[in-house]
Amino acid sequence: MARIVNIIERTVSLASGMSNAGISFDTMTASAVVLVSDQLRNGKPLVGLAFDSIGRYGHGALLQERFIPRILQASPESYGAAAGAGIDPFKLWALMMKNEKAGGHGERAGAVGLLDAAAWDLQAKIEHKPLWALLNERFPGARQPSRTAIYASGGHYRPGVGAKGLADEIARYQDQGYRRFKIKTGALSIAEDQQRIEAVIRTLGDNASALSVDFNGCLAEHNALPWLEALQPYGLAWLEEPVEALDYQLLAHCARHSQTPVSTGENLFSLADTRNLLRYGGLRPGRDMLNVDISLGYGIVEYTRIIELMATLGWNKSACIPHAGHLLAAHAAAGLGLGGHETAPAHPLLGPYPNDYRVVDGYLQLGDKPGVGLEHMPGLQRLFTEMIP
Amino acid sequence: MARIVNIIERTVSLASGMSNAGISFDTMTASAVVLVSDQLRNGKPLVGLAFDSIGRYGHGALLQERFIPRILQASPESYGAAAGAGIDPFKLWALMMKNEKAGGHGERAGAVGLLDAAAWDLQAKIEHKPLWALLNERFPGARQPSRTAIYASGGHYRPGVGAKGLADEIARYQDQGYRRFKIKTGALSIAEDQQRIEAVIRTLGDNASALSVDFNGCLAEHNALPWLEALQPYGLAWLEEPVEALDYQLLAHCARHSQTPVSTGENLFSLADTRNLLRYGGLRPGRDMLNVDISLGYGIVEYTRIIELMATLGWNKSACIPHAGHLLAAHAAAGLGLGGHETAPAHPLLGPYPNDYRVVDGYLQLGDKPGVGLEHMPGLQRLFTEMIP
Repeated sequence: MARIVNIIERTVSLASGMSNAGISFDTMTASAVVLVSDQLRNGKPLVGLAFDSIGRYGHGALLQERFIPRILQASPESYGAAAGAGIDPFKLWALMMKNEKAGGHGERAGAVGLLDAAAWDLQAKIEHKPLWALLNERFPGARQPSRTAIYASGGHYRPGVGAKGLADEIARYQDQGYRRFKIKTGALSIAEDQQRIEAVIRTLGDNASALSVDFNGCLAEHNALPWLEALQPYGLAWLEEPVEALDYQLLAHCARHSQTPVSTGENLFSLADTRNLLRYGGLRPGRDMLNVDISLGYGIVEYTRIIELMATLGWNKSACIPHAGHLLAAHAAAGLGLGGHETAPAHPLLGPYPNDYRVVDGYLQLGDKPGVGLEHMPGLQRLFTEMIP
Repeated sequence: MARIVNIIERTVSLASGMSNAGISFDTMTASAVVLVSDQLRNGKPLVGLAFDSIGRYGHGALLQERFIPRILQASPESYGAAAGAGIDPFKLWALMMKNEKAGGHGERAGAVGLLDAAAWDLQAKIEHKPLWALLNERFPGARQPSRTAIYASGGHYRPGVGAKGLADEIARYQDQGYRRFKIKTGALSIAEDQQRIEAVIRTLGDNASALSVDFNGCLAEHNALPWLEALQPYGLAWLEEPVEALDYQLLAHCARHSQTPVSTGENLFSLADTRNLLRYGGLRPGRDMLNVDISLGYGIVEYTRIIELMATLGWNKSACIPHAGHLLAAHAAAGLGLGGHETAPAHPLLGPYPNDYRVVDGYLQLGDKPGVGLEHMPGLQRLFTEMIP
């Protein structure tokens, strides 16, 4: 049984000049977490690492106020694995959520998700295997558990960057081995955004089915159908988050009127909210997709429950392509056999993969190092070197 | 135009031996906020005060990380009232929510709600009137804007306190002028809880319609109908939060099978979530009630939008009885003409009213002092005296 002896948290800036149809990222932050265990390997304590997913600010304060103390005050028996060495992430999860009311799945879901992710990283290291392998053992079914389909997410609105610059960005991703792509849409007029989309489609040799577009929830009742109708003829891969996360009624309206598949869920952070999306959002199994964010949505433990729920409602987990370019999600996509993985190649921190990962012809081949491998990411290496005791 | 020159926040313990069917309150915290303006009265700066509602922990960390800096860094023009002195809480609200993604209405909603409440308190003081009067001016329609129907909320599960102790508690509230009451239910067996309920009904001279019961969301598919059927014959005033906040489907099932009115919403913290509750929860205008928590749900600004939304869906604001015994909610209930106000007479901090308030025959007569009056509450007086510069 392992004991968690210390938890270190640091908030870092994710400032960039990017924006999507909804928000700017100039003041965006993220939390990094190091969970220190009493297990030694080569004389050093094994650690579990986690790094926030993007877009909802860091979770340091909530971690410090509620969730870190709950873990450090708990007895190791309360989260120890029943058999073998290590910890049980499900027990740890229950412990964190004690005396938390139902509902209100916001920042809390991201804070718990970080500690859940760190727990899985630690447990994989204790078992000396990559997380994709651990997940595949516990939740079998993936055909190629070290590998996942992948797409390059980019095409943000940047001041001074027009359709030409956007097409160049996509061409760079092609050179890096990506074969499917997603760009932002909805912040300009339909005609202006069509120019962006068409420039990218030309770059893709007219293969529009390799491109999807992300509205970041910006469509409203008055303009949703005109937008959908304008984009329909292209035959895009999918339309992402066309409307506000919680407006299931308008989403159902869009899903009914769209021939193009719809993907959404990244701003719903719980099993309970995902259930409502599936009940009321008008999404169709076999056509549409869910991009719930694993780290921001209470972590792997909750995500396995979401997959179970989906199965009871006729959904295959191949419909899952988690938000948002996070190495944790790559392990889940591969090890759990999800539909694919989003990656953000241009993101300075979260883009570059560890050097034993390979992006080849639209697929990501994950590495073999124990755990998730955040400490081997070029963008996070230095941060975690500083943080790991 | 007023300028907000400083914002002071302090986290205080709400520890108590109480519990409901869901959680224990032993580690519960709350935030107190003081918004300091550049407006002087009698040589002292006018301040806006706020104190958390109960049950979701303090919001200090989020306030410090995101929302306080946004206000202090903003120009006074960006939140100043268009005409006259003071600030515009709607502008301040928009400023706080800039670069916040949709969805995920959890802790953030409580943090923004605190600053919104403090802004309304400040503005009422700048206009030198109680908040109920300010609200009644801006949103007319209340017949008696300084007065609201009220009920005493209590009857928690306490170790060693049985049906007799519970009945005694209710009798004390009767002596204090209360005529309607609510107790916790659902944490024991049906038979055991019926003993509690029947003991209280006897104390009420067999007037069961003066009593409601609160499940705190604990019923599930397997036991919801047996519970509802067991309680039906009493003719209680309402059944509160029978099921988990976000399970609209099970709620609709309960609403369909209940002759007793249903009240819920306290664990939904936004307009978007309330809209889903009204769309999918099977609640009936004219029978059922909404107890959305104003402070935890983005404050007064969002609450006025919820009332607008309700009107478009055929709901009267008399169906609103906000959670949870908060003086801010008393002002909203009176000034906006809501259906009533919950109060927690036994709560050491939030129970006792300022000494110019009167509870008479089931109604609360609010005082005339400018603002909300948190600094005049016996349980909070000392805290705010320490905090106010």
